[in-house]
Amino acid sequence: MRIEKLAEATGVAIDWKPFLLGPIFGEQGWSDSPFNIYPAKGKYMWRDLERICNALSIPFVRPSRFPRNGVLAARVACWFASEPWVNEFSKAVFHANFAEDREISDPDVVLACLRGLGLQGSRLLKQAQSAESKAKLRAQTEHARSLGIFGAPSFLVGKEMFWGNDRLEQALAWAKSHDIAAK
Amino acid sequence: MRIEKLAEATGVAIDWKPFLLGPIFGEQGWSDSPFNIYPAKGKYMWRDLERICNALSIPFVRPSRFPRNGVLAARVACWFASEPWVNEFSKAVFHANFAEDREISDPDVVLACLRGLGLQGSRLLKQAQSAESKAKLRAQTEHARSLGIFGAPSFLVGKEMFWGNDRLEQALAWAKSHDIAAK
Repeated sequence: MRIEKLAEATGVAIDWKPFLLGPIFGEQGWSDSPFNIYPAKGKYMWRDLERICNALSIPFVRPSRFPRNGVLAARVACWFASEPWVNEFSKAVFHANFAEDREISDPDVVLACLRGLGLQGSRLLKQAQSAESKAKLRAQTEHARSLGIFGAPSFLVGKEMFWGNDRLEQALAWAKSHDIAAK
Repeated sequence: MRIEKLAEATGVAIDWKPFLLGPIFGEQGWSDSPFNIYPAKGKYMWRDLERICNALSIPFVRPSRFPRNGVLAARVACWFASEPWVNEFSKAVFHANFAEDREISDPDVVLACLRGLGLQGSRLLKQAQSAESKAKLRAQTEHARSLGIFGAPSFLVGKEMFWGNDRLEQALAWAKSHDIAAK
């Protein structure tokens, strides 16, 4: 929700690389979100997120189900990562899940996110579910893991990794001072 | 290392409540630091810490052993929490561990931290190891756990919890805007 304006103001280019958290968590022995596995920490994280959204006037409603399966949405974002609408699409999916408490594993919800941007949703969804698209997301997830990524969002600036919304400013500052684009 | 100046500038009073992380981690099923249990995350956390210290000009050397047993130092900080020197003592212990790579479980190192502040180290160490002192730290750790604390540093501002160095500013801002002292 914050990155576009800040990146533009800093003059840093963003290269989106969607990946799946599930397999990366799985490798750490987690079959669920750490928010659920560690309840004391999870309770805090939800409150922290709520405070942050309040401060930034970003609509937020704690989802009644968490985590939801975001594979289809991730396939769309991954397959169409270089399309000009991909960031708006990603924001629409996050808004559906975290502001409207909608079931983003439902193809109709993903379709609505695409159509809301004036896109031909059915055609795009079909392409995003091709064997090539599935393979691309798998490969990108494996690449993320090989880079040492363990959570999202992660910002790669050259070889420097920054993790989390609260490291966005540092990532952009690093990119600017080292004259490299973020990934 | 940062809290005193910021708290003073914000006009917020700090009430130190030292506790042990070990029993709190133990309750989450961890017998070691999560930095060690989750190596990908651990590797990142050390680099993150290094970058933060560099940016703030705080001396930092990754300890050759981690975590070290800080029970004795915690007992001193807990028993003497209301003494005017307790913050300087805590900083000296953190500096010994994280800048000089010294073995803070060694009573001589804790003694040196006390003596460096011009204090009668041996007498204070003896008091900090009394049955009452041990019980106070145990009770305070249990109290921390009952408040939902799962890591350190944690800042309690009324009933609002903020976790981590990177939430210090928010904690102080919350205290100021709600007119309450931090704990």
